[in-house]
Amino acid sequence: MPRGLAGVTVTETALGDVRGREGFYHYRQYSAVELAQKRGFEDVWHLMVHGTLPDTAERAGFLARTAERRSLPDGVRAALPAIARAGSGPLAGLRTALSLLGAERGMRPVYDLDPADRADDALTACAAVPTLLTALHRLGEGREPVEPRADLSYAANYLYMLTGREPDERRVRAIERYLIATVDHGFNASTFTARVIASTGADVVAALTGAIGALSGPLHGGAPSRALDTLDAIGTPERIRPWIRERVLAGDRIMGFGHPVYRTEDPRSRMLRGIAEEFGGPLVEFAVQVEREVVAILAELKPGRELHTNVEFYAGVVMELCGLPRAMFTPTFCAARVVGWSANILEQSADSKIIRPAARYAGPPPPQPVPVV
Amino acid sequence: MPRGLAGVTVTETALGDVRGREGFYHYRQYSAVELAQKRGFEDVWHLMVHGTLPDTAERAGFLARTAERRSLPDGVRAALPAIARAGSGPLAGLRTALSLLGAERGMRPVYDLDPADRADDALTACAAVPTLLTALHRLGEGREPVEPRADLSYAANYLYMLTGREPDERRVRAIERYLIATVDHGFNASTFTARVIASTGADVVAALTGAIGALSGPLHGGAPSRALDTLDAIGTPERIRPWIRERVLAGDRIMGFGHPVYRTEDPRSRMLRGIAEEFGGPLVEFAVQVEREVVAILAELKPGRELHTNVEFYAGVVMELCGLPRAMFTPTFCAARVVGWSANILEQSADSKIIRPAARYAGPPPPQPVPVV
Repeated sequence: MPRGLAGVTVTETALGDVRGREGFYHYRQYSAVELAQKRGFEDVWHLMVHGTLPDTAERAGFLARTAERRSLPDGVRAALPAIARAGSGPLAGLRTALSLLGAERGMRPVYDLDPADRADDALTACAAVPTLLTALHRLGEGREPVEPRADLSYAANYLYMLTGREPDERRVRAIERYLIATVDHGFNASTFTARVIASTGADVVAALTGAIGALSGPLHGGAPSRALDTLDAIGTPERIRPWIRERVLAGDRIMGFGHPVYRTEDPRSRMLRGIAEEFGGPLVEFAVQVEREVVAILAELKPGRELHTNVEFYAGVVMELCGLPRAMFTPTFCAARVVGWSANILEQSADSKIIRPAARYAGPPPPQPVPVV
Repeated sequence: MPRGLAGVTVTETALGDVRGREGFYHYRQYSAVELAQKRGFEDVWHLMVHGTLPDTAERAGFLARTAERRSLPDGVRAALPAIARAGSGPLAGLRTALSLLGAERGMRPVYDLDPADRADDALTACAAVPTLLTALHRLGEGREPVEPRADLSYAANYLYMLTGREPDERRVRAIERYLIATVDHGFNASTFTARVIASTGADVVAALTGAIGALSGPLHGGAPSRALDTLDAIGTPERIRPWIRERVLAGDRIMGFGHPVYRTEDPRSRMLRGIAEEFGGPLVEFAVQVEREVVAILAELKPGRELHTNVEFYAGVVMELCGLPRAMFTPTFCAARVVGWSANILEQSADSKIIRPAARYAGPPPPQPVPVV
């Protein structure tokens, strides 16, 4: 059994596929990058959950249904200041607040629900995530939360609630493309967590809460701001080469480079670099230069490893350009991925088989039971 | 790949083993049933987390360390009434409250901690679980929570906080043996969830919150009270045979019978029947009679299936005899299993490899990407 179940197929899915050797991934047949370039976030959300891109009438109905679920129940609203005060970061806060929201909304085990009610709970939970994340962030800074607006798109409303100002269209589209491109991506640890929990028949929020916990792990969702920290640490172009060589020779991992599945350039990275280049400016020029030099140095020092920038490298740059604070980089990722988790939960719920693997005991053998004295 | 990963070995563990064909399971070499008969809960907790049964001095130190962590931080205490009001059951409440407690206690990713600090966070979380569960239950009934007492054992303090009265020794030992026997049991869905989340390097409570979510699923932790409901539904000895035959012929599952791993009698069931028989009385006599007849009927109607009572059947009886309300049956299971989860989290944290399996795409093929219009 490979460590970490790497490459071990655990189930079938119709939600999408990541083709690591081709540098291509899709959502239900549609190139995810092309969806990001041509569609809005709610269209992709509809695709993931309902299986089809919406027509004009479906889009209007879906937008209205998601928008009306952005407001928080009073019990959650009242609890947010205490949750923000407890600290420990925005994902720990979201974990608590969304867990409470599920109870406030009376969510029941998916095992006891028909598919339409499951989908409704999933919609309710996802639609509230940007509201919770931005409110917790603002409260943590001593500011009042901004009420959601139903007339804005998911992406625009997210930026609006974060800053209190209506965002310009270029930033909205930049973040929206990022959100679409990160909705789903194979059986990463958080998606797998959501599916294991869903396989027990638990409620939608039980599964999402576990997934948020997994995403909060430094080995999973913790890197977009750290990739940007790397750019800061390097500082100037002439320091790129010595800084990277030193790290690689010390055996450190360079944040923002390398992916467990892609053996080519990460298609998300390529798209995000394009978005960054639309903005232009010194940060983008520096990032492109760092990418070029690091890839060359890694090819020289670790030949055959095919190390390229991953999604995190330019995600950090794009989020910085859009004015997001670094503490909100991973939460912004979460605001996209929660939709992918919910689609995975709904797919898993259609199967009534609990996920219950086995472990091999590798401690000292009890040939006859060791007597308890 | 078998559905639900049944029988698929996903990792190695030194924590214990379930030998389904022998009807035997152990914790670190020690027969779990023998531990339950001869030791206290804290001894087994120490064994799971530190690898050895404690000597007298270690036991005293460990008892003191766990007891002093039973009290809740003020922020959690203040939030409990709102969490109880939100409803949705005691496990959903625990999920929220423990998530908040992790933040209040400043728990950091295990990835950033040394083993001693990880173990300390695990101890802090586990020790608070009975306090949270009993407080939420009492608040839900409109009563005040009972403050924990440091001079009582884990099991005695649990019953004390639930009822507000010091429990008699027979009930304490009955519940304590139940708690010990259910601390750990292979790679069930909640334990596996905890390990997947821990593999990302997330904090201890992130992993426990996910595990609680998995346990709340009807296919996992939901059955001890339902097995007792079955006894109620049957009602009288002469109705056993027709009631069961009707259910089996309708294809219904009989709650409290059958286990995914055991092909023999469940050793936990055997022990719990013994405890129930120490109490005696009409409920126990009826349960024993139902067991005998159901096993015979199942052997007749489903030959070769080897269906016996599982842990849930007599667990419900024992908890009823100890005066636990049915709403607290699964939470009581959780108060034991949280220690097993924490040992699994600590073991998983020693491995820095994230658990990231793969899925097989089984939707319509995108031979060339479907164009997005």
